[in-house]
Amino acid sequence: MSDILHRVATRTSTPDGVYQALTTIDGLAAWWTTDTTGKTGLGDVIDFRFENGGFTMLVLDLVPGELVRWEVVDGPEEWIGTTVNWNLKQNGDYTVILFEHLGWKEPVEFMYHCSTKWATFLLSLKELVETGSGSPAPHELRVSDWR
Amino acid sequence: MSDILHRVATRTSTPDGVYQALTTIDGLAAWWTTDTTGKTGLGDVIDFRFENGGFTMLVLDLVPGELVRWEVVDGPEEWIGTTVNWNLKQNGDYTVILFEHLGWKEPVEFMYHCSTKWATFLLSLKELVETGSGSPAPHELRVSDWR
Repeated sequence: MSDILHRVATRTSTPDGVYQALTTIDGLAAWWTTDTTGKTGLGDVIDFRFENGGFTMLVLDLVPGELVRWEVVDGPEEWIGTTVNWNLKQNGDYTVILFEHLGWKEPVEFMYHCSTKWATFLLSLKELVETGSGSPAPHELRVSDWR
Repeated sequence: MSDILHRVATRTSTPDGVYQALTTIDGLAAWWTTDTTGKTGLGDVIDFRFENGGFTMLVLDLVPGELVRWEVVDGPEEWIGTTVNWNLKQNGDYTVILFEHLGWKEPVEFMYHCSTKWATFLLSLKELVETGSGSPAPHELRVSDWR
């Protein structure tokens, strides 16, 4: 098993803004992909679509201001059954996001790519929370020939 | 053991520019940290210094246009003994960089941070190779309260 791990922090006095950006369709669409649909409650599924496919997430856990957990129930084969965890904590003037995409069966090249892309989307989330405007797909930062 | 993995690609017709940026002091100083000193040959050590410390790398492997490997011989305790691998390959109009920072004993919070920072420095390397100008420390992108 291999995991993707990241840490970013937003300059915000409470985790509320980050939590909103992770648990509302409008919030998610403003930093990950503009084509986000579905429902965001516990047990609901959220559809994230991109130019060449997308991901469907089942909402596994929701603890306001602290934790959001998703299970990937549809998408690329390598993603299905993996989990995406968002652990939030307040550290003075910063809301710290500990991000985990856990349970990759093999460290395939696509995982290397996703690791880098997650970093750029986390920075888009940071930008959104701090400035009101992120860089979601299809206008996100391109990192390679794989976009 | 935990690993940090990333994939970026530069729009370049040969891997030569990326290889140069990984194997010369001027190249390294232009995307990672301006305070880079030492020698870059096989068996040499390179010192990378930042505002709050730094890393010393022993050059383990050099295969022109294909591979650069370093062992961390000094720096934060969690880094010592880990290895940093740069695998290059040409894919049409792109030079693909498969980056690995292998051998973290534990997935500590500092590793989450380093994973995100590596992504931003890889994008700085991409920017350097494609445009002639990167974003090395101390002027690099800040991702959190940990810089």
